[in-house]
Amino acid sequence: MKKIAIGQAGGPTTVINATLAGFVKEMTPDFSLFFIQNGYQGLVRGDLLEGNEENINWVLEHQNVPGACLGSGRYPFTDEKLEKAVQNLRQNSIEVLVFIGGNGTMEALNKVEKAAKDQGYDLQVIGLPKTVDNDLGCTDHAPGFGSSARYVAQATRDISRDLHAMRNFEQVRILETMGRNAGWLAAASGLLKTFEEEGPQFIGLPERPMKQLDLLSTVEDAIRKYGCATVVISEGVKWSEGVQIQREEVNGRAVLGGISGEVELFLKKELNIMARSELLGINQRSSSQSVSNLDRYESFLTGITGGKWIKEGWSGIMVSMQRDDDIRYNVDMKPVQLEDVVKAGERLMPAHFIDNRDRYYEWLLPLVGDELPTYPPMIQRRDLYVNQQN
Amino acid sequence: MKKIAIGQAGGPTTVINATLAGFVKEMTPDFSLFFIQNGYQGLVRGDLLEGNEENINWVLEHQNVPGACLGSGRYPFTDEKLEKAVQNLRQNSIEVLVFIGGNGTMEALNKVEKAAKDQGYDLQVIGLPKTVDNDLGCTDHAPGFGSSARYVAQATRDISRDLHAMRNFEQVRILETMGRNAGWLAAASGLLKTFEEEGPQFIGLPERPMKQLDLLSTVEDAIRKYGCATVVISEGVKWSEGVQIQREEVNGRAVLGGISGEVELFLKKELNIMARSELLGINQRSSSQSVSNLDRYESFLTGITGGKWIKEGWSGIMVSMQRDDDIRYNVDMKPVQLEDVVKAGERLMPAHFIDNRDRYYEWLLPLVGDELPTYPPMIQRRDLYVNQQN
Repeated sequence: MKKIAIGQAGGPTTVINATLAGFVKEMTPDFSLFFIQNGYQGLVRGDLLEGNEENINWVLEHQNVPGACLGSGRYPFTDEKLEKAVQNLRQNSIEVLVFIGGNGTMEALNKVEKAAKDQGYDLQVIGLPKTVDNDLGCTDHAPGFGSSARYVAQATRDISRDLHAMRNFEQVRILETMGRNAGWLAAASGLLKTFEEEGPQFIGLPERPMKQLDLLSTVEDAIRKYGCATVVISEGVKWSEGVQIQREEVNGRAVLGGISGEVELFLKKELNIMARSELLGINQRSSSQSVSNLDRYESFLTGITGGKWIKEGWSGIMVSMQRDDDIRYNVDMKPVQLEDVVKAGERLMPAHFIDNRDRYYEWLLPLVGDELPTYPPMIQRRDLYVNQQN
Repeated sequence: MKKIAIGQAGGPTTVINATLAGFVKEMTPDFSLFFIQNGYQGLVRGDLLEGNEENINWVLEHQNVPGACLGSGRYPFTDEKLEKAVQNLRQNSIEVLVFIGGNGTMEALNKVEKAAKDQGYDLQVIGLPKTVDNDLGCTDHAPGFGSSARYVAQATRDISRDLHAMRNFEQVRILETMGRNAGWLAAASGLLKTFEEEGPQFIGLPERPMKQLDLLSTVEDAIRKYGCATVVISEGVKWSEGVQIQREEVNGRAVLGGISGEVELFLKKELNIMARSELLGINQRSSSQSVSNLDRYESFLTGITGGKWIKEGWSGIMVSMQRDDDIRYNVDMKPVQLEDVVKAGERLMPAHFIDNRDRYYEWLLPLVGDELPTYPPMIQRRDLYVNQQN
């Protein structure tokens, strides 16, 4: 039986286990599976778990569970470690290597394939896409993003309702989303906005430097009109007037976060109002309560598709989703070269979406899954109040 | 027609509008309703909205919407303002005053009733309970808590799954919950914990000072055994070795938050590991995705019940829920004196729940509503790994 090693890498999502489950269902019982623990670190250390009935069932039970059940993580993949990884695969006679991950993972897979080929070791390599911030190239979107976007959209709408009720106590909330270089998630915060009094009133994207005056005037205007303002900012946003804030570095990777705190201080000082900043946090990629049913289905299908393509002999590719909406939402799974994914780099939000938010939301709406309930307007006609002194 | 004024006060919840909707449904069309805007501030300023078909429908449309649709907020209720409030009610010939709120609200209602009586103004007063942190006395629990507890429980479980996948990158997450003096919400974080490797491994409650050595040894032990630890801390927790952290004051009210950041720094320093702290944030009281169906039903019923009791002529009372489980969950709505609620003060978690967590979870489980799916264990048998060097 052909031996296949599969691992998960990078930050988990709510649906990365669905991709794994889809793949495992497609490949059993005709292939011999090896589960790689803790992503590339496990590959380098040779932490392979041989598939058997017990652990295959254990993996399948995780289909709807957040996190990455094999262990994932971040790991700097040096040339020396690459050698060791290939050596481990060869020693265990692995014929196919599959990883579920994002940009870094596709780059590493590409390297592993090349290194194997240089040694005359015939290793078939396939990447299965995963993202929360939608920064993966050569695909319309990738599994994980729809659920995170759903979370951000509903949390922003709910928090903005709460803020409106509390506007005599606090006037501004600043919500910080994930999205190091790409603003897809931050921009998703406005998906459910139906009324102008509803948040977000301002969205800061990493693709465009944030102008202090724009922020100030938008927030001031919203406070004047509605008594409060909800601001959403991507973790990677930069002031046009200054430099990006970095909190600290871990394993050479800057841990962002802090821009929302800076905006809080700035708005408090400039407007003399009460503002509170909050990270939307790990929930964005882990909340089982906000999973998009379409996203979960596509994640599962991505795993199935990768499995089918292995049977067909493909290598050096990633499963991608190509969008071809006609009257309604339609995607096709298509293979794209790992090399092209690597070359594409981090995929930013295109200008036609940044400058035309409605067009973006039209594209986004099907991805967030089941329709979310509509809310009534936040503001009642003021002329009905008995006393109009305020 | 008897004139009734109703308002919402304090921090909103996901279900406070359901209580309002229940009340309004019970009272229309036989009573003349006045909606008070922005809680006690609106009462003092005389911001009363006279109910009509349009705005009554608008209120009812908010039944399942988070936030407080009439406007709520925090407001220091001085003696001078109390006078003005009574004067406004009297000028508008209000015969019944109803507020949905927590401890502060019940205290204010009690004062308004007394002040009216002193003036010979016959004002009927009823309080409808609302809380997220369950610190309201004379009731088994109050509307809002079940949904918040559900949120905290599921978010903690999901975040702990995510952490376990990321343990080669970060080892500790510290989640800060609401709960200024009462630990009900923080303790709810362990409700869904099924396996010892699953978080939370440590819960800090404001009722018991937190010992640095307890925290350290629990976290160290979990990292040694499972590679990571999830810590949940209530915003009001105090170190037994030091003093409570206060970030700032707004309108004389300390804005807590910051203890989780302090725990992060402490654990990083002592254990030389990567730790990350996060507030579970406003989502705890606003997330429409985590509403407990029982909580929403009881909230609605609280409003209905308050309305019925007004018709029966009760005054100076709050609607309470008295628990009387036999074979299954059972509560009865009963009137309790506002005076007794005020005397009871902030209701802390009792020792028999703090010291016997299982007993607490048995009490809590029905309140969080529909059963949440079970997850499989996080850890596979290590002896199955091909390579056991790690």
